[in-house]
Amino acid sequence: MPKLVLVRHGQSDWNEKNLFTGWVDVRLSETGEKEAKRAGELLKEKGIVADILYTSKLSRAIQTANIALEAADQLYIPVKRSWRLNERHYGALQGKDKAQTLEKYGKEQFQTWRRSFDVPPPVIEDHSEFSQIGDIRYKNVDPSVLPKTESLALVIDRLLPYWQDEIAADLLDGKTVLIAAHGNSLRALVKHLDNISDEEIAGLNIPTGIPLVYELDDQLKPTKPAYYLDPEAAAAGAAAVAAQGTKK
Amino acid sequence: MPKLVLVRHGQSDWNEKNLFTGWVDVRLSETGEKEAKRAGELLKEKGIVADILYTSKLSRAIQTANIALEAADQLYIPVKRSWRLNERHYGALQGKDKAQTLEKYGKEQFQTWRRSFDVPPPVIEDHSEFSQIGDIRYKNVDPSVLPKTESLALVIDRLLPYWQDEIAADLLDGKTVLIAAHGNSLRALVKHLDNISDEEIAGLNIPTGIPLVYELDDQLKPTKPAYYLDPEAAAAGAAAVAAQGTKK
Repeated sequence: MPKLVLVRHGQSDWNEKNLFTGWVDVRLSETGEKEAKRAGELLKEKGIVADILYTSKLSRAIQTANIALEAADQLYIPVKRSWRLNERHYGALQGKDKAQTLEKYGKEQFQTWRRSFDVPPPVIEDHSEFSQIGDIRYKNVDPSVLPKTESLALVIDRLLPYWQDEIAADLLDGKTVLIAAHGNSLRALVKHLDNISDEEIAGLNIPTGIPLVYELDDQLKPTKPAYYLDPEAAAAGAAAVAAQGTKK
Repeated sequence: MPKLVLVRHGQSDWNEKNLFTGWVDVRLSETGEKEAKRAGELLKEKGIVADILYTSKLSRAIQTANIALEAADQLYIPVKRSWRLNERHYGALQGKDKAQTLEKYGKEQFQTWRRSFDVPPPVIEDHSEFSQIGDIRYKNVDPSVLPKTESLALVIDRLLPYWQDEIAADLLDGKTVLIAAHGNSLRALVKHLDNISDEEIAGLNIPTGIPLVYELDDQLKPTKPAYYLDPEAAAAGAAAVAAQGTKK
């Protein structure tokens, strides 16, 4: 039976500083490294043995996977990476302080950018220091498809082809697939798997560093509700994510 | 022009304890982690940007690659792993103390096992705690091809098909290929690339943690002698490797 295990990367240097990150390639903070290690220990404790790892092209997700697999004693598994698993591109908000953005634009605009399903922030300008124009990570990707801003709807649009062709193929082979990615790329996937409506997805927060397990049938439909390997920590973590941006 | 960069993993917990390791999956020591970081810093300093990473299936090589690529800011590159890049299988010597082995069997037998081209140590018994029978790392490999002991000649035999089909294909595409592997799998590759005789290869020691660069033509022949990114440290490191096993 195919099994899908999702891990959202832990705290990054910019989460800590309360900045919008998106595609800016920041690293895990020390707290984030500890979260990643805990994720790996949970995999080991619960006897989950991954057959293959998927990551985004962003360092904080890759670091999370490397640290977790080291703790789980599963460093040897094959790896695939794709920009299609990247965090949502935050457009012109990338590099901006969340609390200042909230203050400057007001709560309504702020919440629209953060949580509306299909309203992307303004596009980032090519000359911005936080733009990914010319980023070597994406040198093999058709430049016209690389985003300059994204809503969650656009994240789903660019993630699903990769899910359908690559990840689904491994799951349909009966493999246990581990994905280390980001808050919004994982929300996109959860929305798809759990058939969550455009309205309801706004309220869904995935906690960091706690593996979320889907057991799937041969149609890649969940056979039961997905579960976190540490449900108590997951509940506390989701509440913390929901409060983001409101702290000063 | 294709470029090949070889990195031998740094000190492991068992190097430190002076034990024969082979396919036993030990981790890097703290010194080994520092060596890996230095390897990555050298890549960055010298402007070497890898397009793809190859590793063995052993944690110490994978840790080396993960740490080096983090230091080099190249975590995003694609990865391939194969048992064919593993360290030489040390047979019944796996888990044995090097100094005790030297004392027990004498210098001649010891040097034959360590340095002869085609004399493997005795095979490891399946019930040994240091055997890889049933090791999940190799579950997708034809069991009949997995070694129970190896000479350097046998390492070359199992490494070359992977070089010819996989690594060569990426190099012929013009890619810069990084390989993180082991003393003997890298000696096997260097012997092939530099056309070193069976006799002379015994004297070749590859230092740990210092990237060795080959610039290749379209026949995958070196266009000039391979060079270390830190030649002075490499000379000192090779001498230290040569002295291994003689300390008590």
